[in-house]
Amino acid sequence: MGKGLTKRAENYSEWYNEIVAKADLAENSGVRGCMVIKPYGFAIWEKMQAELDRMFKETGHQNAYFPIFIPKSYFSKEASHVDGFAKECAVVTHYRLKNSEDGKEVIVDQDAKLEEELIVRPTSETIIWDTYKRWIQSYRDLPILVNQWANVVRWEMRTRLFLRTSEFLWQEGHTAHATKVEAIKEAEQMLEVYADFAENFMSVPVLQGTKTESERFAGALETYCIEALMQDGKALQAGTSHFLGQNFAKAFDVKFATKDGGQEYVWATSWGVSTRLMGALIMTHSDDYGLVLPPKLAPIQVVIVPIYKSPEDLNRISNYAEGLIIELKELGISVKYDDDDQRRAGWKFAEYEMKGVPIRIAIGPKDMENGTVELSRRDVPGKEGKEYAPQANLAVRLQELLEEIQVNLFQRASSYRQEMTTIVDNYDDFKKTLTDKGGFIMAHWDGSEETEKRIKDETKATIRCILHGGKEEDGKCIYSGKPSKRRVVFAKAY
Amino acid sequence: MGKGLTKRAENYSEWYNEIVAKADLAENSGVRGCMVIKPYGFAIWEKMQAELDRMFKETGHQNAYFPIFIPKSYFSKEASHVDGFAKECAVVTHYRLKNSEDGKEVIVDQDAKLEEELIVRPTSETIIWDTYKRWIQSYRDLPILVNQWANVVRWEMRTRLFLRTSEFLWQEGHTAHATKVEAIKEAEQMLEVYADFAENFMSVPVLQGTKTESERFAGALETYCIEALMQDGKALQAGTSHFLGQNFAKAFDVKFATKDGGQEYVWATSWGVSTRLMGALIMTHSDDYGLVLPPKLAPIQVVIVPIYKSPEDLNRISNYAEGLIIELKELGISVKYDDDDQRRAGWKFAEYEMKGVPIRIAIGPKDMENGTVELSRRDVPGKEGKEYAPQANLAVRLQELLEEIQVNLFQRASSYRQEMTTIVDNYDDFKKTLTDKGGFIMAHWDGSEETEKRIKDETKATIRCILHGGKEEDGKCIYSGKPSKRRVVFAKAY
Repeated sequence: MGKGLTKRAENYSEWYNEIVAKADLAENSGVRGCMVIKPYGFAIWEKMQAELDRMFKETGHQNAYFPIFIPKSYFSKEASHVDGFAKECAVVTHYRLKNSEDGKEVIVDQDAKLEEELIVRPTSETIIWDTYKRWIQSYRDLPILVNQWANVVRWEMRTRLFLRTSEFLWQEGHTAHATKVEAIKEAEQMLEVYADFAENFMSVPVLQGTKTESERFAGALETYCIEALMQDGKALQAGTSHFLGQNFAKAFDVKFATKDGGQEYVWATSWGVSTRLMGALIMTHSDDYGLVLPPKLAPIQVVIVPIYKSPEDLNRISNYAEGLIIELKELGISVKYDDDDQRRAGWKFAEYEMKGVPIRIAIGPKDMENGTVELSRRDVPGKEGKEYAPQANLAVRLQELLEEIQVNLFQRASSYRQEMTTIVDNYDDFKKTLTDKGGFIMAHWDGSEETEKRIKDETKATIRCILHGGKEEDGKCIYSGKPSKRRVVFAKAY
Repeated sequence: MGKGLTKRAENYSEWYNEIVAKADLAENSGVRGCMVIKPYGFAIWEKMQAELDRMFKETGHQNAYFPIFIPKSYFSKEASHVDGFAKECAVVTHYRLKNSEDGKEVIVDQDAKLEEELIVRPTSETIIWDTYKRWIQSYRDLPILVNQWANVVRWEMRTRLFLRTSEFLWQEGHTAHATKVEAIKEAEQMLEVYADFAENFMSVPVLQGTKTESERFAGALETYCIEALMQDGKALQAGTSHFLGQNFAKAFDVKFATKDGGQEYVWATSWGVSTRLMGALIMTHSDDYGLVLPPKLAPIQVVIVPIYKSPEDLNRISNYAEGLIIELKELGISVKYDDDDQRRAGWKFAEYEMKGVPIRIAIGPKDMENGTVELSRRDVPGKEGKEYAPQANLAVRLQELLEEIQVNLFQRASSYRQEMTTIVDNYDDFKKTLTDKGGFIMAHWDGSEETEKRIKDETKATIRCILHGGKEEDGKCIYSGKPSKRRVVFAKAY
């Protein structure tokens, strides 16, 4: 096993923590609940950002930036927003430090107290709608299609790197529309963008659906979500898109002059994904040897390790590698040539395996004689994923293999999800499936918040979503026996 | 004048504020001192970020992310760091809100008081060196070449959009080295990168130099800077790079095992540029008609405005424009075709002039007959910058013109700086030049902090830098008459 990594089957949670540490992705900082994202982890996040940003721009959005601080009073304006979640927040009360009298430390200057406390943004609906009030007068000013890349803070008592941290990085889209139909279409469109990104870049299959009322974002009329399934059978909400109706427009008094001269409140959406996606990425593909990355998000797609004893051997290998690297770069493939003479080849193999580099190429003197290389694909560990490939046309072969790995990871995760999705018709089976197998459970539900809550209290399973495009089907609620029109998706979740 | 813009000569400060507002770059928010960067302004900042990020990566740096909060006690660890500036900070004291008893508002939950206050980062040396302590054991772990793109907060009483705001966006590089020589080389290299960026992308000529001791960054042994000159004759510090010696390594106890088995403190640098560059960009090039942007940083490089009365005219023009747009995009030129029928052409002309679009093309029915377009370059307003260009090979002509504009802006700013740089040999001339003309003043200084301070108190001029590559020259300090080996650069500054 990679560098003494705990096995998934032994302790999934420990396995996850170790991968995050050993693959140099992130670590805890000296500040409770706040993480340091290390260069290798950040390089993956940058790749995610770049793709998402491109997709946002292709769908007509522009980036902007809004203040990190929100006056406390703003949170009182949209009642359901505050009731829902805006409580565990970092509160700024003072604006100056000073030296202590003995000169040995700095202390808070009590004279520098803010008249109104400022909240470090947990999300930016309130400050943004306070701004949109200035930007929107007429239908001509609509739609506003704005996104922000930012850090946000939600004070968490129990944190886990990437999955739940007090500070995290995310993007939050905030759009303003003249009509309800247009706003709903926008919220749906962004869910599609998220699903596209998850499946085609992260190789993570996701369910698309709508949250139940109790799981909705605070202030939203509808919350759409993508839900992924981790290898321990638990679900992970990977992104949400909210139709906010006119709630924030009303709270911040944002009206527009319609074409026919009337005045109407503006319709809104918001949508976001965060560094939590890193957690989903790690937990979906990685194995007992370490991180596994889909090629499209791998900072290093191909690593080349020369195996040599003499300088002459190294020279011959390096000459060949140079040409290969040029070819790979021309194909847009990121490649690293690791000829560091301080580390043994075995150490390097373990290192790149742990870091999830999709393809490893080893070249020794024998290979140079035979005109081959040893090629190992990370998605198939061990001998099975190893082959001796001819040096001729290798670059093109690698390009194809990267595509194959990308698809293979998606298919493997899809098969797993299929195996781990169970249709259940009574509460005993439901509980048994939850305990013995986990995964997504498709079951009938009577639509009441009470039933949802009881099931959650008794089993810890929540309704992940009401599937989009799910078929209607008469049935009986597994809990209350009341009639139901469709199955919903239950699971225990992160 | 563009949309009733105040003239520079009338009120430079007001002119600046109006451009920021009218060109849709940024605005004040509901939070004192914090700005909203609007989409058009942010698009310029994104272009800056992309170029700088590329340059950082080309020089071997990687991005990472560190917490926004820093425990208060960290600031006590490096004494000169705290004395220098870490006082005007946002202080987080609580981590929870709750509903007031009457349920009408949210209030701070006094039970949720932090044991140790957290400071919103004004800069990240302390939290990063606390982290590097975990990352660095041996010479093999060095160098660490890390950059962070982040928001930082320094509480400011008097703020101006981009130039001085309580929250601003920036990048901060933090590197760790095994030797003093290597660290100094890194700090110098990054100053070169900044100068390259300022001159070749922003078209802003800069002086490169070293700060005097009193103007140094708190905790640095040397601060290098680039200094630009604004059109009102005031200097603007556009970027700094610090050689930090072993100060932070000592404060956070970061040692490494040397090759020969010893233990040594690590050598450090830090370097940063911020959204303040937006202020420098605006103030260097813009005129009484509005914003002027160098093509390399313009979100829209070419705008095409059709002039038509009949739908048939529009059709013919649009057909031609379509082909031109394809050609321009192939050349990597960003182009906007504005056929919005809700706005008159005159309105559009004023709008794109205000927004600093480098080239405007207008096409009317006459042009279509003649096979020409009306081409206006933004850097030369009015008739002088207008020509009728043949439609044949227009894309290539535009590409060349964009390059020409880029260079022209730099040359114009360089000429201005040259005119506005005065060699002065006595204090009377110094004061007279400062009052009547402004600009950079090259004068002898005795090297003492006292003289520097007196000149500052009496005239508000500061020593901007000791020029790199400046020639040695015997002379007498303009203030004290004491001997001096070289002139330094004085100016009033932003």
